[in-house]
Amino acid sequence: MHRQLYDKLRGEILAGHLKSDTRLPPTRLMAEDLGVSRNTVITTYDALLAEGYLESRSGSGTWVATLPADAVAARNLVGSAGAPSLSSRGTRMANQPRDRTIPDHIAFHPGYPEIKGFPFSAWARLLKRHARYSHEDLYGYHWVAGLPRLQAAIADYLRGSRGVECNPEQVLVVNGAQAALDILARMLVDEGDVCWLEEPGYIGAQNAMLSAGARLVPLPVGPEGWSLDDEARPSPRLIFVTPSCQWPLGCVMRMEDRLRLLQIAERHDAWIVEDDYDSEYRFRGRPIPAMQGLDKSGRVIYLGTFAKTLFPSLRIGFIIVPPQLADGFKRVASNTGHCPSLLLQAALADFISEGYFATHLRRMRRLYAERQKLFVALCRHHLADWLTIEENDAGMQLVARFTRAFEDEALWQSAQRHGVDFSPLSRQFFSSPPQQGAILGYAGIDLKAMREAIISLRAAFVNLDSECASDQLPKSALPPRS
Amino acid sequence: MHRQLYDKLRGEILAGHLKSDTRLPPTRLMAEDLGVSRNTVITTYDALLAEGYLESRSGSGTWVATLPADAVAARNLVGSAGAPSLSSRGTRMANQPRDRTIPDHIAFHPGYPEIKGFPFSAWARLLKRHARYSHEDLYGYHWVAGLPRLQAAIADYLRGSRGVECNPEQVLVVNGAQAALDILARMLVDEGDVCWLEEPGYIGAQNAMLSAGARLVPLPVGPEGWSLDDEARPSPRLIFVTPSCQWPLGCVMRMEDRLRLLQIAERHDAWIVEDDYDSEYRFRGRPIPAMQGLDKSGRVIYLGTFAKTLFPSLRIGFIIVPPQLADGFKRVASNTGHCPSLLLQAALADFISEGYFATHLRRMRRLYAERQKLFVALCRHHLADWLTIEENDAGMQLVARFTRAFEDEALWQSAQRHGVDFSPLSRQFFSSPPQQGAILGYAGIDLKAMREAIISLRAAFVNLDSECASDQLPKSALPPRS
Repeated sequence: MHRQLYDKLRGEILAGHLKSDTRLPPTRLMAEDLGVSRNTVITTYDALLAEGYLESRSGSGTWVATLPADAVAARNLVGSAGAPSLSSRGTRMANQPRDRTIPDHIAFHPGYPEIKGFPFSAWARLLKRHARYSHEDLYGYHWVAGLPRLQAAIADYLRGSRGVECNPEQVLVVNGAQAALDILARMLVDEGDVCWLEEPGYIGAQNAMLSAGARLVPLPVGPEGWSLDDEARPSPRLIFVTPSCQWPLGCVMRMEDRLRLLQIAERHDAWIVEDDYDSEYRFRGRPIPAMQGLDKSGRVIYLGTFAKTLFPSLRIGFIIVPPQLADGFKRVASNTGHCPSLLLQAALADFISEGYFATHLRRMRRLYAERQKLFVALCRHHLADWLTIEENDAGMQLVARFTRAFEDEALWQSAQRHGVDFSPLSRQFFSSPPQQGAILGYAGIDLKAMREAIISLRAAFVNLDSECASDQLPKSALPPRS
Repeated sequence: MHRQLYDKLRGEILAGHLKSDTRLPPTRLMAEDLGVSRNTVITTYDALLAEGYLESRSGSGTWVATLPADAVAARNLVGSAGAPSLSSRGTRMANQPRDRTIPDHIAFHPGYPEIKGFPFSAWARLLKRHARYSHEDLYGYHWVAGLPRLQAAIADYLRGSRGVECNPEQVLVVNGAQAALDILARMLVDEGDVCWLEEPGYIGAQNAMLSAGARLVPLPVGPEGWSLDDEARPSPRLIFVTPSCQWPLGCVMRMEDRLRLLQIAERHDAWIVEDDYDSEYRFRGRPIPAMQGLDKSGRVIYLGTFAKTLFPSLRIGFIIVPPQLADGFKRVASNTGHCPSLLLQAALADFISEGYFATHLRRMRRLYAERQKLFVALCRHHLADWLTIEENDAGMQLVARFTRAFEDEALWQSAQRHGVDFSPLSRQFFSSPPQQGAILGYAGIDLKAMREAIISLRAAFVNLDSECASDQLPKSALPPRS
């Protein structure tokens, strides 16, 4: 009742029907008139008084406040004006592509790790441990650069397993790898600066650099490696690379090219951003150490994520920043709001220091190696008419090339209708005429789901074939030739 | 052993001591020479082969690879060059102030809610529920705009309690209020655009706008309200306000001023960002509905946070975006990495829909009202020589003014040494000569801690008094006059 009366009176005042400086009836009379309790009227008057719709004048009751008549009138005409437009930057940011996912469908979206095999009971126990009150600092505004125990655990892991040179103070824990790119792009690049990005290359890095106003220049990558020789390219301010497992091709940058790239960066006084997003999954031989450990000048900024080693929706990533910039980056993490929840950081720190992380990694490495073999075998068996696919030493996805001239976006549309996802290779190109192909993630699905999804993908290809065939027929199609 | 040998050989190659095209001894000989197992040598050679330091030549053993001599040499000189500099934007961002916290000290940092009284056992149960495997979509890359159940819960709450007009698709769940500001500043403002910000006003909003390149123009606020009449101010692109409980003064914008502000925004075709950061805590009367519900043109963008109603390190906030911009903002949330963990979102959605949120809010509203009364009484009893303080109808902090000409930063230094924190009022000014005062958060500490901290603050004032007194003495001080 109170709400109804409140909305009614407020509406009448805002519409200009109850005019400024009108005296309202005393609460008792209003209550009698409306057949409601006097308390309802008193509560309503009080609310409207507090908000300034009404005024109390001493000795003479309650009045409609003097509201600016033109503003009241303007408000009632305001719908026509409509909202302002976004900034130019905002328009650019709002129109960038993003790699969509399909609810309920994991296969074959790249980058999905195995979820069901995650040690959830240990994880739940660790979370519960920190979900109870332990220490005030875990709930407030502390540790904007990261929970110190997690910074230390990450530094230890990276020194031991990835050859990264760092101390815990250099570890900036952020809300996922995309947050890391969002920070780095703004910190290292001004509007109009040139960035060399791998092509094909990571769409998330493209987006972050474009959002920061960078001019993208392709650094071509093929199965044989990175094309570093082109001196015709404009001088870069930042070079983005995935040297340990190139996204999406999966190749590894050889030592010769790493040294060459450091030399190029030095010559141009450019930063190198090294995205080490899934280098943990190397199936043959020892993982390749990070470039960061080769660099002596502090120009290589390393970033990594737990999206592939734990799961994507955890949203915890990290940047290894040069020591002299650690304080500045800490401010920026705080001022951009890119710090992840301390509860998750505490649970993750325990997950690493109590050995669950290393065990899970070992298990996943074995599992993904098996799944890759099976996946390639199944693709060759069922899809050989449409695509070729090769095994790779590393990563969680493979690039399949088409045997005929298909548009990968058309295949994606068709696959989506069959409940299967993948990432079209053409989306990873931003300047050159794109190559066509399918980036297929195989790590997150078991044999049964894999087999079913491959059959669905086959159906998508068959559909596409028949669409292409019908496109080539004249409109008044003759019966098929015998 | 393997690691030592690996480091040794790699170091020799990179230092140029082991030259390109040198043949290494066969593994058996190397193992005998060094007194290690042959397997150790084989593993080491394999690793260096994989990384491109060594080459295997068929029939003639293992060789040091042909690395670019100039790059090897350059690397060894590289330390001298040093790292590149940050971008101009990065330098600006890295040098912005941030409101620091002191580990182990909550009193009287503003914005801290009561932590110990949080229903942790319910929270732990809800987290555990979602920390086990339930549905694939909770772990992957889905729901970048927010978990649909949480979007719906927030929309319901805002419609019912805050008078916000929205549907669930307009709710963008982001990594805290600062993330919301970081997104909004970039989406709505271009470099050089004018933003009106309240002065004194929220430092986080200042930082976000400056990071986006905005030109800040003060919108003065005093105890009597907002100064909206100054037509001499440059035309704004965005107006940032906290109308329901002004930060830091705690005043409420009256209806007349809300309409006037909407009219001004309309005239300049400007956005209004309404930060409703702690309006839930209103101790007398009904909470004032949000401005967003008054606006018909879609120019008011509402943002809120769970930092004050649950706890800050949860890091979940939200933006209510105009319907036609929902898709663009969703892309931007995804491309900037501002999406919070889905696990926390799932637990929070249950926390709201199962009634814990409403119960906790009611309890905290009562508790903070009591604490405010106690706090004001204690301050008046112990600190009347140094400051004046008034009760307020709302919020989690009060602004105390000094009775004498103190520098609030000097008091802050002194207070910090006594283990007490607060926010200097002068930090909330960005253009005008700052006013001096102390923003004192009282919500997060119980009576005992409050009393102790007030005694410590008293000691900090006494210290400051004696420092001021000694500053006024000549260097060769005479004994104090009797």
